Amino acid sequence: MQEIGIGLIGSGYIGKTHAIAYNAHRAVFGGPLVPVCRALAEIDQQKATSAAAALGFDRGVSDWQQMIAADDIDIVAIATPNALHKEMAIAAIEAGKHIYIEKPLALDTHEANEIIAALEKHNARHAPLVHMLGYNYLCNPMISLAKEIIASGELGTIVHFRGRHIEDYMADPSIPFSWRCSKAVSGTGALGDMGSHIISMAMYLIGPIVSLCADTDIIIPERTDSNGAVKRVENEDQAQAMVRFASGVMGFLETSRVATGKKQGLGFEIVGTKASLEFDQERMNELRLYETSSPNGRKGFKTILVDSNCPDFKAFCPAPGHGLGYNDLKIIEVNRLMKAIAEGAAVPVDIYQGRNIEMVIDTCVLSASERAWKDVR
Amino acid sequence: MQEIGIGLIGSGYIGKTHAIAYNAHRAVFGGPLVPVCRALAEIDQQKATSAAAALGFDRGVSDWQQMIAADDIDIVAIATPNALHKEMAIAAIEAGKHIYIEKPLALDTHEANEIIAALEKHNARHAPLVHMLGYNYLCNPMISLAKEIIASGELGTIVHFRGRHIEDYMADPSIPFSWRCSKAVSGTGALGDMGSHIISMAMYLIGPIVSLCADTDIIIPERTDSNGAVKRVENEDQAQAMVRFASGVMGFLETSRVATGKKQGLGFEIVGTKASLEFDQERMNELRLYETSSPNGRKGFKTILVDSNCPDFKAFCPAPGHGLGYNDLKIIEVNRLMKAIAEGAAVPVDIYQGRNIEMVIDTCVLSASERAWKDVR
Amino acid sequence: MQEIGIGLIGSGYIGKTHAIAYNAHRAVFGGPLVPVCRALAEIDQQKATSAAAALGFDRGVSDWQQMIAADDIDIVAIATPNALHKEMAIAAIEAGKHIYIEKPLALDTHEANEIIAALEKHNARHAPLVHMLGYNYLCNPMISLAKEIIASGELGTIVHFRGRHIEDYMADPSIPFSWRCSKAVSGTGALGDMGSHIISMAMYLIGPIVSLCADTDIIIPERTDSNGAVKRVENEDQAQAMVRFASGVMGFLETSRVATGKKQGLGFEIVGTKASLEFDQERMNELRLYETSSPNGRKGFKTILVDSNCPDFKAFCPAPGHGLGYNDLKIIEVNRLMKAIAEGAAVPVDIYQGRNIEMVIDTCVLSASERAWKDVR
Amino acid sequence: MQEIGIGLIGSGYIGKTHAIAYNAHRAVFGGPLVPVCRALAEIDQQKATSAAAALGFDRGVSDWQQMIAADDIDIVAIATPNALHKEMAIAAIEAGKHIYIEKPLALDTHEANEIIAALEKHNARHAPLVHMLGYNYLCNPMISLAKEIIASGELGTIVHFRGRHIEDYMADPSIPFSWRCSKAVSGTGALGDMGSHIISMAMYLIGPIVSLCADTDIIIPERTDSNGAVKRVENEDQAQAMVRFASGVMGFLETSRVATGKKQGLGFEIVGTKASLEFDQERMNELRLYETSSPNGRKGFKTILVDSNCPDFKAFCPAPGHGLGYNDLKIIEVNRLMKAIAEGAAVPVDIYQGRNIEMVIDTCVLSASERAWKDVR
Repeated sequence: MQEIGIGLIGSGYIGKTHAIAYNAHRAVFGGPLVPVCRALAEIDQQKATSAAAALGFDRGVSDWQQMIAADDIDIVAIATPNALHKEMAIAAIEAGKHIYIEKPLALDTHEANEIIAALEKHNARHAPLVHMLGYNYLCNPMISLAKEIIASGELGTIVHFRGRHIEDYMADPSIPFSWRCSKAVSGTGALGDMGSHIISMAMYLIGPIVSLCADTDIIIPERTDSNGAVKRVENEDQAQAMVRFASGVMGFLETSRVATGKKQGLGFEIVGTKASLEFDQERMNELRLYETSSPNGRKGFKTILVDSNCPDFKAFCPAPGHGLGYNDLKIIEVNRLMKAIAEGAAVPVDIYQGRNIEMVIDTCVLSASERAWKDVR
Repeated sequence: MQEIGIGLIGSGYIGKTHAIAYNAHRAVFGGPLVPVCRALAEIDQQKATSAAAALGFDRGVSDWQQMIAADDIDIVAIATPNALHKEMAIAAIEAGKHIYIEKPLALDTHEANEIIAALEKHNARHAPLVHMLGYNYLCNPMISLAKEIIASGELGTIVHFRGRHIEDYMADPSIPFSWRCSKAVSGTGALGDMGSHIISMAMYLIGPIVSLCADTDIIIPERTDSNGAVKRVENEDQAQAMVRFASGVMGFLETSRVATGKKQGLGFEIVGTKASLEFDQERMNELRLYETSSPNGRKGFKTILVDSNCPDFKAFCPAPGHGLGYNDLKIIEVNRLMKAIAEGAAVPVDIYQGRNIEMVIDTCVLSASERAWKDVR
Repeated sequence: MQEIGIGLIGSGYIGKTHAIAYNAHRAVFGGPLVPVCRALAEIDQQKATSAAAALGFDRGVSDWQQMIAADDIDIVAIATPNALHKEMAIAAIEAGKHIYIEKPLALDTHEANEIIAALEKHNARHAPLVHMLGYNYLCNPMISLAKEIIASGELGTIVHFRGRHIEDYMADPSIPFSWRCSKAVSGTGALGDMGSHIISMAMYLIGPIVSLCADTDIIIPERTDSNGAVKRVENEDQAQAMVRFASGVMGFLETSRVATGKKQGLGFEIVGTKASLEFDQERMNELRLYETSSPNGRKGFKTILVDSNCPDFKAFCPAPGHGLGYNDLKIIEVNRLMKAIAEGAAVPVDIYQGRNIEMVIDTCVLSASERAWKDVR
Repeated sequence: MQEIGIGLIGSGYIGKTHAIAYNAHRAVFGGPLVPVCRALAEIDQQKATSAAAALGFDRGVSDWQQMIAADDIDIVAIATPNALHKEMAIAAIEAGKHIYIEKPLALDTHEANEIIAALEKHNARHAPLVHMLGYNYLCNPMISLAKEIIASGELGTIVHFRGRHIEDYMADPSIPFSWRCSKAVSGTGALGDMGSHIISMAMYLIGPIVSLCADTDIIIPERTDSNGAVKRVENEDQAQAMVRFASGVMGFLETSRVATGKKQGLGFEIVGTKASLEFDQERMNELRLYETSSPNGRKGFKTILVDSNCPDFKAFCPAPGHGLGYNDLKIIEVNRLMKAIAEGAAVPVDIYQGRNIEMVIDTCVLSASERAWKDVR
């Protein structure tokens, strides 16, 4: 086993998820590469030091640029608000480090293109860097199983995809104004935060989206920030879009941060001519499959529980149905990164695919503003 | 108790549902009026006679016009393919009979207007007739409970409505071409058949739909008819629409006759700022409610089972959770008709509301063909 | 079609269920025999007259003996408190009428034997009478499907049966003392009321029960009757029993009238070496099946929705998943009676089988009192 | 933060779960103590070395006694077959090390008493050792929430407990004979393996079990071992018991290793006079609660999803519904051990409680063999 040095920027909610995954990775997967928590960058030295201690990093640093430059850092992981991704990613690329960026890639397609330009410039002259985005839901063994089932042809011709990622974390009007409500820091609202997840899922399972018609809403137009100031919410609380995939398949996507009662409402239903598949992240260890090939009187949606037939599961537990949790998806994602670096394996979402997701989001914004169907380009 | 004479046209699937409901109505509701099965009209005398015997009607007739004219017929019930509704409805109105028409009202808005014109002409000179459409799903006690919950304000402000009626009865390409695949006899495909159900539900619970953008698909372009001839399917297998209600609420509606695995996939999710409601006709005796007013650590979607707090249920059974079936909805619908005639009570969907449903369907067709948002008018 | 005259004793909850079923039977099944509601017997003439009108009977009578004797009565249906069953059943048998008795057959095995003696005495000299008990849950098409699946051998060897019928209709201590709490009128409590249902289900699906060990409880020892008098509850609120079937299969049965939250908690889980089956009456149109024969990665409990592959369903509706309700089970039960009379078909539970159920209940009472395993005999 | 040295014996299925938990603990909980993976003992040096590397231990050793003696080992974790627990536990106690033993504690009550004797002997002369058993399911935040709900009195008087832990890992007769089928190595079969889990759950939530009547079965009497030898299965494949708790509450417990279709079928239903609670480990992030205090028309079982109101959850993720997995329970369990050592906090199951579980299991075996109710003592 060979160790590989991680430098993580950001120790918030998602930064902690990274830390747990890096620490657990070896015991779960045992290789090929083993991530080692070298440095954690935070906004000031005090926060960096205490977070590094708590999360198991060798050192805390207040200067992320310096951290990127350090020799013992092989991978730069970026877990900061969206508006910071571009600058950090480009800096890491220019320093010749592999990058692991939390979704969404950037504020918009334009920023994504700048990152890609930096990457291509680097790769033209140096050994190519590995780049992976943190779309952790795609790493669920049940999603891998779903992808296998689709690839096998068992669904027949796919005729419809309904997907959504809806939550209610901003449903209460008394929840304060945060960076997520600001166009400058977050870009879009629900679309970039959770919409990007269901868009990534749709494209991962069904393929490119070529045209769409979207509608968006701001439900709670003003929120009070932590200083007591009333501020205007600048981006959408909910959005929905009818889409067409490159294959011609009709689809529907929906996202919301005000969907009262939904906590992790990422799910989809895929209708095929021979079988249908359903998934709901709130029951993330289950996949529902209806097969027309079952005999009469024995047809029905079957609830498949995770087991060692689902890729990656065995590394966690040999026992079927002994389900995974949200944080486990990050461990699998980290392993994908390890395999990409060690073996050149493909990652679920690289920067190019991340840009495609940005393009769909940008097209949603445009379509909603013009109230018209738009091609994704 | 006073008896009232029923003349039913059509003894197919839905005609039989009518017959069961008329026969059972008295024992369930015990009044105010009691429907009596006087005459059943069918395509020829032999079929009419045997169906009348089997379904408990006094006589079978082959001439529906004659039946409408008969003195002992007070209500004309129309359970025939859509293309026949207009002529039969107008004839019944002109004969001064109450009308009970299976959904959808007609082939399109234009036909609906002709029926309304006949009704208004009659009512201008005579005692007004009762008119009710057979949108039986609205009669479910759980839907009545949902309507009560919405009316109570418990949901707060409604911010989203997702609805659908999807089934798979035409998913198998070997299913023969039927009248439902013909524009001339059926008008639209999935939209008129099941789409009308979810549109009626959306309007019943949320109010008028004022604009929409729809997309439609023919998945299986050709089917073989019962004579072995290959025929082109002329109307949509699936359709979806983003909508806006008069209240400004964002919504999404979907329908399909090729949704592999769905047998009675009529359902909705209503998101409110204080509570959310979910319903699925495949579990028609349940309503799911999430209330933000529950204490922390005790919040969650609650599965409410039908009981005597749900309107109409008590007439069937005093015991909670001893659920109703699909045919029971028709018994309740018949009782609504009895109460409309006896007491002037409102019906769930009258001819005017039925026309509004046709207008939404027509707008879907227009929007899909022009690939643009359209106002409903 | 030939008509057959029904005389019903009792117009309470279950009597009304009978009435609905008799009225609807013809339109649903169209034969072979058609039940006609001739007479309804109640406690006094006024109640009898009004109930007969409401429930669609030709006449109401206050003298059930007289009703039994009437020439136009072919079937005597008994829907009265348990303590009255024996006398009425014997009178009907002696009058040469077919009998249709609501469960449980009688207060205990001793009474059951008296009814059987009367029947055998009659049948020794006359054409044998048809006798059927009202165990309506056995008539569910999903239960018929379960029975077919078991008979097919698809489960392999059955190794365990867990069953229960638990409800909460007496969970609230303020619910008044009723005849069901009295040993003299009801016999046992939960055991005879709902326990008999799950015992009948267990025996219907798995076979005779040969030994058991039971435990019982009175949770609410006193209740106030409708006159305000505090009375001692004389029979069990809940009971459970480990059982062994004649086949050697291990089983567990449970019943309760104080199971907070359960409304129609009749259900079972059958474990076989090749497949397992699960059922819950609160979702009575579903059957859950796990098949080890499914390929790896495609195994899971499958939710089969009712459709025309399930016996009796097609008569109600041709459309799959358009589920039945509680009252529909009685229509099927009535049809079983019609077929027994017309064609000699077997009924789900006849008087002999009903006595076997009484024997299991009596053995439960004995076992609980002696705190020991007991053979059923 | 202070580090504490772990010496783990056994690197199989459950040993790996330990390793993942030790590695992840700091990043999740950040203290108070931080477990450090010092040594891993396995059957030979080669296996020990490679397992230590894969699971993140500093060294692998083939001599567990030597490992126990090492100065840098503060906690001895025992994850070996049941027959080895006693000797290892006593050795660790005598070496003055805290012990963390995988369930069940030992082969039977007699062995448990020997371990306790060693502990008491040690503690009489030295600082008392911390002792914890690995009943990980008790550490689920949903179980902690259930315990809080019970303690709050919200259920009213508890009147029934049904619990079970059933799986199907030995359902297939072709699964080879393993140590779990041997009395000498495993003691009981399903009872000790999974039965101990549901017994621990029952006692954790409801209190001591004072009497019981059990029944057991061997379904597959012979299995082939890995050398092709046909061997007799010596312990039960399934078992069930009616129990009475010290509080008088009636209960039922069941376990099976041949329950076709169940993968992690640990669950319970607790009936109270005011509310009822349900749990199923296959959906381990949900708890179902029915409250009679809900208004009429708004009563129903509520599905509570894990969130920061559930103890321990917040350490993993701030976002509600972002569920935990099976391995996360071990991380919480490890944290319980850390808090017990650092702060003297109580553990979910210590050696004394572990002995009580053994006593219930032994009483089940006795009761089944004598076919009689037995007191637990």
